[in-house]
Amino acid sequence: MSRDVHEKLIVIDAEELSNWDRDLIEGLRVGGLTCANVTTATWEDARTTLDNIGHFYRLAREHSDILTLARSGEDILAAKEQEKTAFILGFQNSSPFEDDLALVEVFHALGVRIVQLTYNNQNFVGGSCYEENDSGLSRFGHNVIREMNRLGMLIDLSHVGERTSLETMAFSSRPVAITHSNPRWHYEHKRNKSGKVLQALVDCGGVLGLCILPHLHGGPTIMREFTLTGFCELVARTVEFMGIDHVGIGTDLAGKHTSDRLKWIHNGRWAFERNYGSSWPGVTDWPEWFPWFNTARDFPNLTAGLLDYGFTEEEAAKIMGGNWHQLFTDSFKPT
Amino acid sequence: MSRDVHEKLIVIDAEELSNWDRDLIEGLRVGGLTCANVTTATWEDARTTLDNIGHFYRLAREHSDILTLARSGEDILAAKEQEKTAFILGFQNSSPFEDDLALVEVFHALGVRIVQLTYNNQNFVGGSCYEENDSGLSRFGHNVIREMNRLGMLIDLSHVGERTSLETMAFSSRPVAITHSNPRWHYEHKRNKSGKVLQALVDCGGVLGLCILPHLHGGPTIMREFTLTGFCELVARTVEFMGIDHVGIGTDLAGKHTSDRLKWIHNGRWAFERNYGSSWPGVTDWPEWFPWFNTARDFPNLTAGLLDYGFTEEEAAKIMGGNWHQLFTDSFKPT
Repeated sequence: MSRDVHEKLIVIDAEELSNWDRDLIEGLRVGGLTCANVTTATWEDARTTLDNIGHFYRLAREHSDILTLARSGEDILAAKEQEKTAFILGFQNSSPFEDDLALVEVFHALGVRIVQLTYNNQNFVGGSCYEENDSGLSRFGHNVIREMNRLGMLIDLSHVGERTSLETMAFSSRPVAITHSNPRWHYEHKRNKSGKVLQALVDCGGVLGLCILPHLHGGPTIMREFTLTGFCELVARTVEFMGIDHVGIGTDLAGKHTSDRLKWIHNGRWAFERNYGSSWPGVTDWPEWFPWFNTARDFPNLTAGLLDYGFTEEEAAKIMGGNWHQLFTDSFKPT
Repeated sequence: MSRDVHEKLIVIDAEELSNWDRDLIEGLRVGGLTCANVTTATWEDARTTLDNIGHFYRLAREHSDILTLARSGEDILAAKEQEKTAFILGFQNSSPFEDDLALVEVFHALGVRIVQLTYNNQNFVGGSCYEENDSGLSRFGHNVIREMNRLGMLIDLSHVGERTSLETMAFSSRPVAITHSNPRWHYEHKRNKSGKVLQALVDCGGVLGLCILPHLHGGPTIMREFTLTGFCELVARTVEFMGIDHVGIGTDLAGKHTSDRLKWIHNGRWAFERNYGSSWPGVTDWPEWFPWFNTARDFPNLTAGLLDYGFTEEEAAKIMGGNWHQLFTDSFKPT
């Protein structure tokens, strides 16, 4: 029954970072995924990001029977109709803009629609959640936000520091997103968000993507401890705090990457000694996820879980993708 | 008489930004300049900085009768002996390192010996004096300082924000420089330094280069108002505060640049509307300097002024270059 409900829904994952191949894209179809915001840059500069975007263009061409690229809310609806999954090209860092304000429009023209202002380190725009002191928005940062607002590029604050996040939400003329983080009251982690940030997100009309990545739920034994019911309880508590229109899903799935790639994700080129990003210190490989959610093929379990927990079909529809679809549709229109 | 004294001195200008040609380099010889720290990057990334460094290699080759490149204190002494001027390749921004810690050693191998941590905007390392909020040193910034300390690259804090400056001096295991700024009590300007920063500079064994750039002395009428005696009085007051071993000269001379180049210097690529950097708002061209110091040919006037003001020959020798030579000699040695 819940499977039938799931198949009707617009299902959106607000953050995936996988090393895409046919098998993974087929997994998105099996999982009933309408749309995913896919990472095309973490530490990369403009030039390397062009390579990455070219790679996604080619992926979409080679798998055009089941995959398409979306630049608007309408494109997402069309993908649903055509039984394809729509990728939205996104950055987990504003690093591809370098220090060049004109590049915001350039990457918008290439199809990029969601940009996280910082990854794990301070950059030209602002401060990260991992920096001891968060600068807030820089002079360039204010200009980047104005330009993203104008063009219709959604601002993402998931890895961004508290001060930069609050200043961004105060300065942006449009709603923003936190595509993949959890409330800090759920688990104390630098990547999770304070009540103050979540309240500001609600106030500006944004959406939080609850993140399934194990590190944002607990220590290295969390995979055995955290259940689907526990996750649905997190959804319920978050909905209670933020309201039903402001909560979605952003898994942070990262399929088929090597441990070398994980080292890049954590270290970029900024340190000689090993860093661990959001991971548990000392763990140099990707984690197994949960029995109830290990790959995108498990998305139907989330819908089933929400319905079992007591959410109505309408509520589950909003959480599983409806809220993201509304925010994306509005945000991708130019002002 | 003072001309004879001047010609014996090691004369060092800790900051020049000129658009070098034969005439300007001959001007350095006429001015009796032993050595200048020359800007090879302001906003540039790694790739473009390679072009700039290549340009300086070629300059040194084409004018090898009067110009040489220095990588050590000994090279500066050799230049004095050979009646040449020694250029030290310097950055006014850590932007050429991008976010890549390995590039510190790469640019050191290319001959770069002095690096200002930030130019006018926040970057991956820290905050600028023009940012409303200075981040302090970032995670990457700490790594860059460790690496510069190890290699023997002198840290410059001239355009760096107050907090980043103080944190740098506390964290660096070696003395740092402020190559071209004035005390803020002389003139209230974001580029000028508080007593707290100057005291920390003394405490860490660094040197301040008093800057002749008109903007750091007053408003647009300063060229008619500020005299050589006034400058020598500034030197005297600064020596009184910091001690005779901690004061030098860093003119910020910028000969033969176009107004388009000035726009680059102010705006880089980070803003669409015009910015004015250290200049007076609305002024889009380079200023005339002072009758007593308009080009490097006027360096002998400074020595004459100091002697007339009452400094001893020994004191003038320290201020005109001796202090910089000592700091450079020590700082360019690897640890």
